[in-house]
Amino acid sequence: MTNDEDIMQKCIQLSLKGKGHVSPNPLVGCIIIKDGKVIGKGFHSKFGEEHAEAKAVNDAKSNGYDLRNSEVYVNLEPCSHTGKTKPCSDLLINEKVGKVVVGMKDPFEKVNGKGIKKLRNAGIEVVTGVLESECKELNKFFIKYVKEHLPYVTLKIAQSIDGRIALSNYKSQWITGKKSRKFVHQLRSEYDVVLIGKNTARYDNPSLTVREVHGRTPYRIVIDRDSTLPGNLKLFTDTEKDKTFVVTGSSKKAVTEIYSRNIIRVKEKDQKLIIKDILKKLYAMNVSSVLVEGGANLYSQFVKSDLFDDIYVFIAPKIIGKGISCFSDYEITKLTDAKILNYIYSKSFDKDLLIYYKNVHRNSTGSGKDH
Amino acid sequence: MTNDEDIMQKCIQLSLKGKGHVSPNPLVGCIIIKDGKVIGKGFHSKFGEEHAEAKAVNDAKSNGYDLRNSEVYVNLEPCSHTGKTKPCSDLLINEKVGKVVVGMKDPFEKVNGKGIKKLRNAGIEVVTGVLESECKELNKFFIKYVKEHLPYVTLKIAQSIDGRIALSNYKSQWITGKKSRKFVHQLRSEYDVVLIGKNTARYDNPSLTVREVHGRTPYRIVIDRDSTLPGNLKLFTDTEKDKTFVVTGSSKKAVTEIYSRNIIRVKEKDQKLIIKDILKKLYAMNVSSVLVEGGANLYSQFVKSDLFDDIYVFIAPKIIGKGISCFSDYEITKLTDAKILNYIYSKSFDKDLLIYYKNVHRNSTGSGKDH
Repeated sequence: MTNDEDIMQKCIQLSLKGKGHVSPNPLVGCIIIKDGKVIGKGFHSKFGEEHAEAKAVNDAKSNGYDLRNSEVYVNLEPCSHTGKTKPCSDLLINEKVGKVVVGMKDPFEKVNGKGIKKLRNAGIEVVTGVLESECKELNKFFIKYVKEHLPYVTLKIAQSIDGRIALSNYKSQWITGKKSRKFVHQLRSEYDVVLIGKNTARYDNPSLTVREVHGRTPYRIVIDRDSTLPGNLKLFTDTEKDKTFVVTGSSKKAVTEIYSRNIIRVKEKDQKLIIKDILKKLYAMNVSSVLVEGGANLYSQFVKSDLFDDIYVFIAPKIIGKGISCFSDYEITKLTDAKILNYIYSKSFDKDLLIYYKNVHRNSTGSGKDH
Repeated sequence: MTNDEDIMQKCIQLSLKGKGHVSPNPLVGCIIIKDGKVIGKGFHSKFGEEHAEAKAVNDAKSNGYDLRNSEVYVNLEPCSHTGKTKPCSDLLINEKVGKVVVGMKDPFEKVNGKGIKKLRNAGIEVVTGVLESECKELNKFFIKYVKEHLPYVTLKIAQSIDGRIALSNYKSQWITGKKSRKFVHQLRSEYDVVLIGKNTARYDNPSLTVREVHGRTPYRIVIDRDSTLPGNLKLFTDTEKDKTFVVTGSSKKAVTEIYSRNIIRVKEKDQKLIIKDILKKLYAMNVSSVLVEGGANLYSQFVKSDLFDDIYVFIAPKIIGKGISCFSDYEITKLTDAKILNYIYSKSFDKDLLIYYKNVHRNSTGSGKDH
C-alpha cells in the first residue's frame, strides 16, 4: 500500500461511523495532513448535516492550524454545488489547501467531476482514483441511488446445505445459528428498509428489528397485495409499529383492511405487484437501500425482474430434505439460461458459511434502467 | 511445528504417492533418520506389495547405511502380524533401530497396538500420536474398512446457489465449472468405486471415467433395481465397460435384462434396495471407499440410513429456480429433526465454491454398526 492508499483506507474507516444514518447521502471521511501530521479529521454523520470536508477543516482550525499547503484526503469528490451545505470545493479553495487526494468521482449529476475541476482551476493539485474500487463498494447504495434513481437491493437468504429456506410446512426458525443472525441484525442497522413478502410475514411473524447489535431499526415493509394479513402480527403491534409500511395493489377494491397507517400503493400486472414500481416508490421516499428477507415468491420476482444487486447466502450445516427453495417461482428450461452471479467471497460464522455474490445484470448498462 | 511433526508431515506427503492403488490397505510413508540426516525413505505403493517400513529399510541399506540407533518415522503403527509380508515391527527390531515415531495406532484388529508393544518390549523407544488427526484423515477409508467392515462413503454434490442439482427436465450438464470437475476426476482416481442411481445413468449418461487428471478409473457401479436401463449407455459400451457393475434386486423375477457381466444382487425392502446391504456387498469385494455421484433419490437414501461419512458440495454461482434438490426424497417435520453435519472447510474453484462437511452420526459409536 502506498502512503496515499494508507490514508485513504483511514478515510474509509472514518466514514463508516456514519453507517445507517446518512442515507440517501454517501458515507464520507476526510483527513487533513500538514508537515506529515494529521491536523484535522471529519466524517459525514447524519443526513443534512455538515459534510466531512467542512468538519475536518473546522477540526483543524479549532486546533489552531492554518490549512495553507495542507493535503486533504477524502473518499468522495468534494461537492461543487450548494445543497443543504455550501460547496466543499469552494471551502478548500478559500483555505488555500495545497493538494486534494480523492477516492472516487461523485456520480451525482450536479457534481460529477465539477468539484475536481473547480479545485484544479484554482491551482490545487488533485490526485484521483486512490482505492477507487473500495470507495465504490463503500458507497454502492449512494451510487445506485444517484445514477439509476432506484435503491440498491440485497437479497439475504438463510438456507440448509440442500438449499431449503423452510420446511414444507413453512417452518424456518431457525435454520442458521446465532452468529449469522447477529450479522443480519448488523445489516438491518445499515439498510434503510427491510422488505418481506406476505407468507414470510404470516408464517414467521418476524419483528425485523435490530436487537443483537447496537443500531437503529430500519423501515419494515411488508407486501400484502390483497390485504389478507392479520392485524395481530408483530409488525403491526410492537413498539416500532410506526416504522412498518404495507405495500398493496393500486386497485382500491382489492384492499379490505390494512393494519398500518403507512400504505404504499403499487401498480399490478398478472395479479402480482410490479417490483420496479415498488422500488420507484421507495426511491421517491429517499430510500437508497433495501434488504429483502424472503420468502421464495419475493426472491423469485427479484430474479425474474433482474432488479437485485447482490446476495448474501448463509448455508447452515443441516440437511432438510423436502421443503421450500429460495427461487422456486423462477423457471428455466436450459442450463445456459441460468442466472449467472459473480462470486465475491465466503466467510464462516461458527458452523454456518456466508457466501457473497454480486448480480451480473443481463443488461450491461446496469439494472433498473427503463428500456 | 516440532521436528517430529515436520518429519511426520513428510511421511504423509510420501504416503500420498500410493493414492488410488493401495486399497483396502492404508496409505503409509516411512522416513529413516540417522545423525540428523535422511538415510532411507519408502511408501506403500500397491496393494499386496512391500510395506513402507520395509522399503525404507531396504533403501537405507542399499545406500550402505547401518540402521543401528536410527530413528524411524511412520504415519501408521508398524504391523505385528504376518500377512502378505513379514511383520514390520520384527524387521525394525532385527535392524536394532533406536527409536520409532508413529502417527497413529493401527486399528486393524490383528495389529491394534501389538506392533508398538513388540517394539517397546525389544527396548526400542516409541513415540505415538504425532499429527494423529492428520494421520487419521489420511487413512479414513482404511479405518472405516477395518473397524466397521464397511466402505467409507462420500456424497459428491454439484448444485446451484439455490440447491438444485438439475432442472425440472433433469438437465444437469454442467452446473459447475471446469476446475470443479477436474477436482471430481481427482476424487474418482482415489476412490475404489463411483456409485450412481438409475435416473442419473439414464438422464446424464455419464462415463464416470478419469479424464481430466492422470489416474485410474474406479469401478463404476449403477443401481438398476428393476433392470430398466437401456443397453446403449456409455457405462455399458465404452472401453472401460469391464469396470461397470450393476446393482439389482435379489428377486430374480424383477430382472429383465442387464447389460453388464458384473451383477451385484442386493436385498430389497419396500421396493427399494437396502443401502446397508449394498455396502456390505461392496465390503466383501474389498471396496474401502465409495463416491456417490447422484441423484436425489440415492443421496436421500444415504441420509435416511445415515450411512454416509462426508459430503463435498460444490456451489456454482448460478440460479436455476424450479428443479431437483439433492435430498428431495428425505423429509422432516420439525427443524430440530434436521440432519446435522460438521462444517470442515470451504475452498473456491474459480467461481465455484466447494464446502466440505463430515457426518455427525446419530449413533455416536459410529455409522454402519449392526444394532
